Amino acid sequence: MAIVTIERRVLEKNDEVAARNRETFRKNKVFAINVVSSPGSGKTSILERTLEYFNGSVPIAVVEGDVQTDLDAQRVAKFNVPAVQIVTNGGCHLEAKLVQDALANFDLRTIQLLIIENVGNLVCPSNYDLGEAMKVVVASTTEGDDKPLKYPSMFLNASVLLINKVDLLPYLSCDLNTLRGNALKINPRLLIFETSCTTKAGIAQWCEWLRTKLTG
Amino acid sequence: MAIVTIERRVLEKNDEVAARNRETFRKNKVFAINVVSSPGSGKTSILERTLEYFNGSVPIAVVEGDVQTDLDAQRVAKFNVPAVQIVTNGGCHLEAKLVQDALANFDLRTIQLLIIENVGNLVCPSNYDLGEAMKVVVASTTEGDDKPLKYPSMFLNASVLLINKVDLLPYLSCDLNTLRGNALKINPRLLIFETSCTTKAGIAQWCEWLRTKLTG
Repeated sequence: MAIVTIERRVLEKNDEVAARNRETFRKNKVFAINVVSSPGSGKTSILERTLEYFNGSVPIAVVEGDVQTDLDAQRVAKFNVPAVQIVTNGGCHLEAKLVQDALANFDLRTIQLLIIENVGNLVCPSNYDLGEAMKVVVASTTEGDDKPLKYPSMFLNASVLLINKVDLLPYLSCDLNTLRGNALKINPRLLIFETSCTTKAGIAQWCEWLRTKLTG
Repeated sequence: MAIVTIERRVLEKNDEVAARNRETFRKNKVFAINVVSSPGSGKTSILERTLEYFNGSVPIAVVEGDVQTDLDAQRVAKFNVPAVQIVTNGGCHLEAKLVQDALANFDLRTIQLLIIENVGNLVCPSNYDLGEAMKVVVASTTEGDDKPLKYPSMFLNASVLLINKVDLLPYLSCDLNTLRGNALKINPRLLIFETSCTTKAGIAQWCEWLRTKLTG
């Protein structure tokens, strides 16, 4: 019981900081998304294709969250956007305070879109509000079509689902309609895009939808 | 600091129960493995191919861990082996106590190999000893070759690495030698098998190695 109490206190404290982050985003007209997925679903590749698509036409900043290494920030840095790497050092999710600290590195008045790439983990990040406008969950076709049923919290808390690596479907037993159906069973309001970072399928649709969200 | 203290206490308590599980396995001559990976790396498919390979020649029992659903236990039940599903209900890893409770469902004197399939999570399960003889980490080629560097704790704590879905390599940018090199950089003692549950490549090698571990 003690653990539950502590956990609740941690979440309450996190929610307070998340609310402050959200207010900071509102004031500065920054649309912030929290991108979550299993390890290796293609979050960083989606980010690369997104930065490539906008090609400087929209001011974007990136917060990278990883258990170890700054490999992802290095990949993003090639696109000449402001990027901060958070290394959680074993921690299984980002928390609002870590994002708050990262924000100090940006001039938010000049940013319209903030992309926060969370730690690769389909369980823990679902409970931690970072102050984002919405969570975007990436699910790879290679993970199979049953993941929304087995990890419902993440799909329930997300607003957008990117079904990634659709180019691999011919080689997999994953059924796209089953995957879509399972996701919508958990969360009927999910907006779904089908993407491939190899063929770039769906990237324009995803980015143009993102563009409609920008108000800065 | 309070959180660290609680967390340490949780781990100490877990280690005590894990030690009791280990003693139970020793007494009953059960070889127990704790199979860990990201969601969708193919843990359950590896399990299916393993059960199929042994085809009743070795008495095997299975403990399935999932955040939600008993889909995996249903898949395993088809092979007519004793199986118990643990649903963590949001919990991000199995703990020794959950496994201890599950063991009550088996007659361990008749079991030689116990396969515990952990929750799909490449971060949290690495800290929780279940009493197993060894952790087996499954990494799918589709997740990319950088995962050992980004999630080092799991690769450091595992004894065996199954590089799964090698049949998909022609369609991926994942480099097998880089993946192997990164894994061995984190843990030079890792025993590595390359597997595919579609072509069954590497399954016989993995199972025959497993067989050498059985003493019951």
